[in-house]
Amino acid sequence: MALIVQKYGGTSVADADRLKRVAHRIADTRREGNQVLVVVSAMGKTTDDLIALADQVSSNPPAREMDMLLTAGERISMALLAMAIHAEGLEAVSFTGSQAGILTSEAHGEAKIEEIRGFRVQESLDEGKVVIVAGFQGVSPRTKEVTTLGRGGSDASAVALAAAFGADVCEICTDVDGVFTADPRIVPNARKLDEISTEEMLELAAAGAGVLMARSVEFGRRFNIPIHVRSSFHDAPGTWVKEKTMEEAIISGIAHDTSEAKITVHGVPDRPGIAATLFEQMAGHQVNVDMIVQNVSIDGSTDISFTVPRSTSATALEVTEQLASEIGAAGVDIDTDIAKVSLVGAGMKSHPGVAARVFRALSDSDINIEMISTSTIRISCVVRSDRVEDAVRSLHAAFEAELVGEEADV
Amino acid sequence: MALIVQKYGGTSVADADRLKRVAHRIADTRREGNQVLVVVSAMGKTTDDLIALADQVSSNPPAREMDMLLTAGERISMALLAMAIHAEGLEAVSFTGSQAGILTSEAHGEAKIEEIRGFRVQESLDEGKVVIVAGFQGVSPRTKEVTTLGRGGSDASAVALAAAFGADVCEICTDVDGVFTADPRIVPNARKLDEISTEEMLELAAAGAGVLMARSVEFGRRFNIPIHVRSSFHDAPGTWVKEKTMEEAIISGIAHDTSEAKITVHGVPDRPGIAATLFEQMAGHQVNVDMIVQNVSIDGSTDISFTVPRSTSATALEVTEQLASEIGAAGVDIDTDIAKVSLVGAGMKSHPGVAARVFRALSDSDINIEMISTSTIRISCVVRSDRVEDAVRSLHAAFEAELVGEEADV
Repeated sequence: MALIVQKYGGTSVADADRLKRVAHRIADTRREGNQVLVVVSAMGKTTDDLIALADQVSSNPPAREMDMLLTAGERISMALLAMAIHAEGLEAVSFTGSQAGILTSEAHGEAKIEEIRGFRVQESLDEGKVVIVAGFQGVSPRTKEVTTLGRGGSDASAVALAAAFGADVCEICTDVDGVFTADPRIVPNARKLDEISTEEMLELAAAGAGVLMARSVEFGRRFNIPIHVRSSFHDAPGTWVKEKTMEEAIISGIAHDTSEAKITVHGVPDRPGIAATLFEQMAGHQVNVDMIVQNVSIDGSTDISFTVPRSTSATALEVTEQLASEIGAAGVDIDTDIAKVSLVGAGMKSHPGVAARVFRALSDSDINIEMISTSTIRISCVVRSDRVEDAVRSLHAAFEAELVGEEADV
Repeated sequence: MALIVQKYGGTSVADADRLKRVAHRIADTRREGNQVLVVVSAMGKTTDDLIALADQVSSNPPAREMDMLLTAGERISMALLAMAIHAEGLEAVSFTGSQAGILTSEAHGEAKIEEIRGFRVQESLDEGKVVIVAGFQGVSPRTKEVTTLGRGGSDASAVALAAAFGADVCEICTDVDGVFTADPRIVPNARKLDEISTEEMLELAAAGAGVLMARSVEFGRRFNIPIHVRSSFHDAPGTWVKEKTMEEAIISGIAHDTSEAKITVHGVPDRPGIAATLFEQMAGHQVNVDMIVQNVSIDGSTDISFTVPRSTSATALEVTEQLASEIGAAGVDIDTDIAKVSLVGAGMKSHPGVAARVFRALSDSDINIEMISTSTIRISCVVRSDRVEDAVRSLHAAFEAELVGEEADV
C-alpha cells in the first residue's frame, strides 16, 4: 500500500464547492487503496484578511500573537476538509501542526522544521483514516509556542511530512497543471514540463516561478522525495521534480519576477569593505538581497546596484541612506518599476553562447537590459516592469526549439 | 493587588474598532494596579459563519471536527486582542483553552469543565502580563482532543478561571449595562438592577434573559465568586450577582423567551408510565423539555403539552408521533407561534397573590394564557408569540412599584 502525501493550496480550497471537489479527489485516492496524508493551506484570502485585521489593531503586532492569529486559517480549512471527506463516506481526522508533531525552531513567522514526531498521524494512518494536517505551522518544543513557517510554508510542511513518513510521493496540488516553460498567461504556447531536475527547479523558483518554493525543492532533494506538481482539479499528470532527469534540456523554462525593487548607491568611494558593511546590515535587518551589480571603478568611485523584495524596500532604503551618508557617497535612489526575467536550463553549462542569444533576443525587441546576473544554469536580466511580458515572450520564441515539454492545453 | 477576570462577548469585539476600545479598557484596569485575566469570545458572527461553512460541506459533520473548526474563532479574537493591548504599551499574551489548562469532559460540543491546570496562565500573571484566554473551549485530557463547552461556554470559562485563580471578581462585560427588570428594547422604562441574588438570576436565565447563562451563575455560586455584569464600553457599575442580596425584592424582573415550540399530544390513554416514557425518550434524543402541563383526565384520556427549544422541535415531534401511535393517542400537534413570559422574584415566596395579579394583568390586556408553570420564585405563562411584547409591558406596568433598580438610561 502506497503512502501519498497531497498538498492543497489556498486557491484549491477557496470555498465550500472547491473544498468538496478536493475532498472527492482525496477520497478517490484513498479508495484506490492508498494511504493518504493531506496538507492544506488556509482558504483563499483568509491569511491576507487576518493580516489586514492585525494591521488595524496594531502597527507592530508581536510575532507570537501573529502566529497565533494566522494559524487559525489552516485550522478552519483542515476541519472543513475533514468534514467534507467524512461526507464522502470515509474516515478523516485533522491535526494542527502541533498535534502532528511538527517541531520547529523558535523563530515566529519564519520557523524552520527541525523534527517530526508524528505518533498521532501514524496511528490514524494505521487505522485507515485520511489524515489532514494544517500546513505552514508547527510548534517550538523549547518555548511550547505555536510557530509559522513563513512563505511557502505549506509546501515545506508537505515535503517534510512526506520525508518523515517515507511517502512514495509528495503531490503539490495547485491551480495550474504543472511547471511550464513560461507563465501560460503571458506565453499562450508555453509547454508543460513532464519532468524537471531539482537544480533547475531551484533556479526557476528563485527566479520567480511561484508554483513551488525553493525550500521545498531543497527538502525533497535532501530526503530523496519525488515531488509531483499537478492540478488539484483533474487527474492528468503534472510535472515530476526529480534529482536526475532522463534527458537534460538545454533550456527548461523562462521565469519572471515583478516583486522586487532596485536600489542604487551612486559615487561610492572605492575602499575595501564598503559592500561588505552594506550587505551585512541588510542581513541584520532581515532584507534578502537578490541581484548585486557593482560597476568598475572610475576616478576612485563606483556605483552599486542591488535588488530586494519590494516588501522590504523601505527598510533597505533607510539602511542604505544611513550608510551612504556615513561613507560620503554621492546619493541613493530607488526604482520600483523594474522586473526580472530569467532563462533557466541545466544544459546551458555545456552550450556556450546562450547568454549572447538572450541579449540579442531582448535587443531585437527593443528591450533595454539594466542589470545582468548569471549562474551556471541561469541568466537573469533586469528590465523595465512594463516590458517584462514582452521579454518573456521574446525569450520563449528565441529558445522555442530547445524548450522541452508538451504543448499547453490553456 | 486584586485579580480581575473580565469576559468580553462577541458583540464587544465584533470589529477592529471595538477590539481597540476593549483593549483600552483592559489596559486601564491593568494600569490601576490590578492583575487582569481576560476571556474572549469569537468576533461578532464568526461562529455562525463557520457553522454555515460546515453546513455547506457536510450535512452531518463529525463533532470532533466541528470543535476543531469553531475553536478557530476565539483563536482569532484572542490574538488580535493581545496585539491591541500590546499597542497600548502593555505586555499581553493569549492562550487557547488547551494552553490555559482548561480540562474538560470528552463530549464534543457540550463538554463540561472538570479542572483547570493553569501553570502558564499563572506564570504570565506573575510576570505582570495581561493574560487573554480563549473562551468556550478546552481540551479533554483523556482523548487529547480539543473540545467546546456549548451555549454560554465563554461565561463558564470566565467563572471557572476566576474560581481556579481565586479572582476577586468575575466581570461579564457585555453590550448592555447590566441585568434589567425587563428587556429595555421592549420596556423603555425598564430599570437596571444594582444587584440580584444567584437564585433569581438562575430563574431569569432559565426564563430567557440572555445576558448570563444559568451554568455560569451556578458555577459562581458553587465557588463563591462575585459576578459583575456590566458594559464593555463604559465604566459605570452594572449588576452584581451575589449569593445573598441586601434587600430581597418582591419582583426582580420580567423575562421572555421566543425560542421555544409547544407540542401537544391529544387523547392520551390515562395509564401510568406514559409521560415517563415520553420524556425519557426526549432526554435520550438530547431534547431539553422546559414546561410540561398535563390536564386532569376526562373519560380515561388526557392531553399532555410541553415546550422544547425550536432548534430541536423536529426531533421532538418525530419522537412524540412515534410514541403516540404506539400508545393509541388521538393525535399530535406542534405550535411554533408561542412565547413564554416569566415574572421572577425571591420575595414572591412570602407575598401571596402574585400569581393572581399576573393572570389579571394579562387578562386586562386581552392576552390569552395557554400554559402556566410556576416555581417558588417564578411564574411563567405561554402566550401567542405576537403578544409577548405586550405581555412583558403589561406585567412591568403592573409590578412597577415592586421592581427594584435604577431607571434605565436607554
